[in-house]
Amino acid sequence: MSERIRYAPLAKRVVSAEEASLHIQDGMRVGMSGFTRAGDAKRVLHALANRLSTEPIRITLLTGASLGYDTDKVLAESGILTRRLPFQVDTTLRRKINAGEVMFVDQHLGETAEQLRSGSLPPVDIAVLEAVAITEQGHIVPTTSVGNSMIFAQQAKKIIVEINHAVPAELEGLHDLYQVGSESDRGPIAIRHPGDRIGAIAIPVDPSKIVAIVSTNHPDSPAKIEAPDVDTRLISQHLTKFFLDEVKQGRLTNSLMPLQAGIGAVANAVLSGFLDSPFEGLTMYSEVLQDSAFELIDAGKLLVASTSSITVSGLWYRKVMDNLERYRKHVVLRPQDVSNAAEVIRRLGVIGINTALEANIYGNVNSTHVNGTHMMNGIGGSGDFARNGRLAIFVTKSIAKDGDISSMVPMVPHVDTNEHDVDVLVTEQGIADLRASHPASERHSSSKTARTQATATRFTAIWNKRRRVEGKRHT
Amino acid sequence: MSERIRYAPLAKRVVSAEEASLHIQDGMRVGMSGFTRAGDAKRVLHALANRLSTEPIRITLLTGASLGYDTDKVLAESGILTRRLPFQVDTTLRRKINAGEVMFVDQHLGETAEQLRSGSLPPVDIAVLEAVAITEQGHIVPTTSVGNSMIFAQQAKKIIVEINHAVPAELEGLHDLYQVGSESDRGPIAIRHPGDRIGAIAIPVDPSKIVAIVSTNHPDSPAKIEAPDVDTRLISQHLTKFFLDEVKQGRLTNSLMPLQAGIGAVANAVLSGFLDSPFEGLTMYSEVLQDSAFELIDAGKLLVASTSSITVSGLWYRKVMDNLERYRKHVVLRPQDVSNAAEVIRRLGVIGINTALEANIYGNVNSTHVNGTHMMNGIGGSGDFARNGRLAIFVTKSIAKDGDISSMVPMVPHVDTNEHDVDVLVTEQGIADLRASHPASERHSSSKTARTQATATRFTAIWNKRRRVEGKRHT
Ligand SMILES: CC(C)(COP(=O)(O)OP(=O)(O)OC[C@H]1O[C@@H](n2cnc3c(N)ncnc32)[C@H](O)[C@@H]1OP(=O)(O)O)[C@@H](O)C(=O)NCCC(=O)NCCS
Ligand SMILES: CC(C)(COP(=O)(O)OP(=O)(O)OC[C@H]1O[C@@H](n2cnc3c(N)ncnc32)[C@H](O)[C@@H]1OP(=O)(O)O)[C@@H](O)C(=O)NCCC(=O)NCCS
Repeated sequence: MSERIRYAPLAKRVVSAEEASLHIQDGMRVGMSGFTRAGDAKRVLHALANRLSTEPIRITLLTGASLGYDTDKVLAESGILTRRLPFQVDTTLRRKINAGEVMFVDQHLGETAEQLRSGSLPPVDIAVLEAVAITEQGHIVPTTSVGNSMIFAQQAKKIIVEINHAVPAELEGLHDLYQVGSESDRGPIAIRHPGDRIGAIAIPVDPSKIVAIVSTNHPDSPAKIEAPDVDTRLISQHLTKFFLDEVKQGRLTNSLMPLQAGIGAVANAVLSGFLDSPFEGLTMYSEVLQDSAFELIDAGKLLVASTSSITVSGLWYRKVMDNLERYRKHVVLRPQDVSNAAEVIRRLGVIGINTALEANIYGNVNSTHVNGTHMMNGIGGSGDFARNGRLAIFVTKSIAKDGDISSMVPMVPHVDTNEHDVDVLVTEQGIADLRASHPASERHSSSKTARTQATATRFTAIWNKRRRVEGKRHT
Repeated sequence: MSERIRYAPLAKRVVSAEEASLHIQDGMRVGMSGFTRAGDAKRVLHALANRLSTEPIRITLLTGASLGYDTDKVLAESGILTRRLPFQVDTTLRRKINAGEVMFVDQHLGETAEQLRSGSLPPVDIAVLEAVAITEQGHIVPTTSVGNSMIFAQQAKKIIVEINHAVPAELEGLHDLYQVGSESDRGPIAIRHPGDRIGAIAIPVDPSKIVAIVSTNHPDSPAKIEAPDVDTRLISQHLTKFFLDEVKQGRLTNSLMPLQAGIGAVANAVLSGFLDSPFEGLTMYSEVLQDSAFELIDAGKLLVASTSSITVSGLWYRKVMDNLERYRKHVVLRPQDVSNAAEVIRRLGVIGINTALEANIYGNVNSTHVNGTHMMNGIGGSGDFARNGRLAIFVTKSIAKDGDISSMVPMVPHVDTNEHDVDVLVTEQGIADLRASHPASERHSSSKTARTQATATRFTAIWNKRRRVEGKRHT
């Protein structure tokens, strides 16, 4: 164990998950590692939920993004959770949120740390962080995600560490842990290229704050990624053609610009599609890497990928963990206020590709609220990238629920990313390039008449002609 | 004149406005200086409009923001304008836009230069720039605004300069002209404090591109700012109290954070209100400075103000121009892709205060579309600041049109800034603090039930109880 806990005074802090959980008390704000199922602490919160049978405990849980290991489900079912932020994807928790039983703060993933720093969100009391190891200095080496762990570690009075022995020690060195610093005293985030390293390889903490260390041995819950189907392949083909056109027009080169791709089947299929494309020398500046990123690295197409988490299928998890020496050259893991920093996304000219629930003829996108009222997952990082990147692309199948619902509508009942920021919409039916650069496009024209005519013309290319869409009120 | 044209070979390029206008030809994309009535070129476009009687000319006009001198009105009436971006405030032009006769691209003011650089917008053909002087190197010293003049000068094949003798030569040195550079090869915008200077004092150009120089002698059109009234004073008082509370809670100090305030009576009244407040050592990182900024400088309360334009009343215009040596220490004029840069706004933790047309109980703001379909002015810089700043505050009177319209509605028919980004709403009735930090606030809660209950409770504080609001569809 000493290889994993290299700061000797902490050896005596190793306890059971149950014992560690005793540091979490009623009313606390708990900051936990974990970003899209990767790098989440896997045992202490489960142990805490078990205590509920004997004592009344209610907590606020902050994480990087969604968790694996059914943690959100178990916490939601137990009734321990009063408040959750900034993102989730669990069915049970979602039901509780929509019933008003758990308060959910749906936030831009790049902004939670800023809000904690500025006091717009009250500070976390305790942090629970999964780690590969604790260094000689008592600093914490995260595992497969970084998320908000740095700000949690900084603010918390107590830190519980879960050392995960299922994660190879060789993961150490892949992280680039830069402290963004407070608004009144900080400089630029000096990243000029996706692979630039500007920080430490462990989270600096005062080791005396580490009150408990728990030993675990569980791989991350595998990502549930559906294989490409006919529709996602078509979306990928439309998008490849769009990029080829951009290259032809001289607006992009064959290495495009740094890419961000959201979680989910469509985004994964789009990147996989690049395997058979002429694009090469690619880079990613993303918040999550799925299987497709590693396929592209293996194919020699993707040179470097910056991310806040590695969220892959079971098969790829093993491949990546067994070949860390190889991937080390290509992958950088960052805190989410760096992976999603407005500054870096704008500077690098990132191309963001995210999945919409639905989109409308004015170019507004709904990413979160089914029917305008039912929360799905949250806006995640889609806003961080869409508003600050060079190109904001949203993809979705044109119909949902086996054809019962059109995802292309006259008016979205909830707007997460609006017409000012949406550049390109893609469905299996085609592509709508809404940028003002295109002579016929009047997306941003505010004359609704002119806009409706011109945008709707482009829009018809992407909706499914088999579907009729009921009229909705304009937005 | 040699003092104003210090690069000798250009002396022979001095011509009449009519002659200069001949460089502008049918179908051209014209980039002109001018930002909220300040620093606009005042003669060449008028001369161009006159040519219309004899030849058919249609142009696209890009500027920094809105223009003075009735230029937009004259151009709109003449029929010369086919396309206009990124902002306007003229009644005649607005009518044409809403009739679909002029295409209007309503853009974030900080993004136009980025879109020109990346090719999302086609490049401008010719630039028409107002200047104080041309330097020994043939570089251009702008006047009371910088706007998008740097990117226009860089892209245009030809440049027409209007040397404005009504602007004192002493304005030279107030500008900080930094080239943001292209997305594939650029570093940070290294501003750490609002007053930092990182650029040149003149726009670097190849002087051979300057094909014509026109002499003018007209002060900027004065800003039309209504004096504070009962309602705007109340808004100012509510906001002052809010800031005092923030200081008491330890989230802000008496010097607050760098402030941005939008154009208009409400924002001006809010800043004027700071004169009688305990706040001191203030700074601004804004896109426009109104009278109130100079009142605060004179009172010793505002130390430094960064802006892209000086837009003041006739009285203050004289005062500022006559005392440039004094204001030089306090004012920095920047290109709008720097004044509105996501990077700097986020880094500095700017507090943005902008005026909404209307807002709704979910915290969504409509800044642009009356009734969801009728364009008012455009989103301007409000989105740049709201989405990237530390606090996004929107102010508006709770009723418009003499009480016929409530500005606080259940659902806004158009969303410019959404619930993810709106922190505080203020009307003369009170303040609604929608931040997640407040225990009772569930703004971002996605359960519409929970959110409606909690947010609506806060919301009632700011709407006018005299008004009943008709039900609208939820967003
Ligand atoms: C939009 C989003 C929910 C799509 O998820 P996905 O897994 O890629 O796509 P799916 O087609 O499987 O859709 C997910 C669910 O939404 C439903 N759905 C999709 N479009 C819908 C629509 N227009 N109306 C109603 N339901 C819809 C699907 O039927 C599916 O329901 P199910 O879980 O009951 O089967 C997801 O991408 C998301 O949460 N986006 C916001 C966050 C984000 O963009 N993060 C950025 C980077 S990680
Ligand atoms: C919203 C905005 C139009 C308000 O303008 P203002 O001059 O401060 O405020 P006013 O109260 O005079 O409103 C302007 C007009 O809108 C009308 N108006 C205001 N609220 C309205 C509402 N809810 N419904 C219909 N009309 C409304 C007013 O009656 C007035 O009409 P008029 O010109 O016919 O008299 C203006 O601030 C704007 O364009 N904002 C977007 C751009 C921006 O925020 N830029 C940021 C920094 S410069």
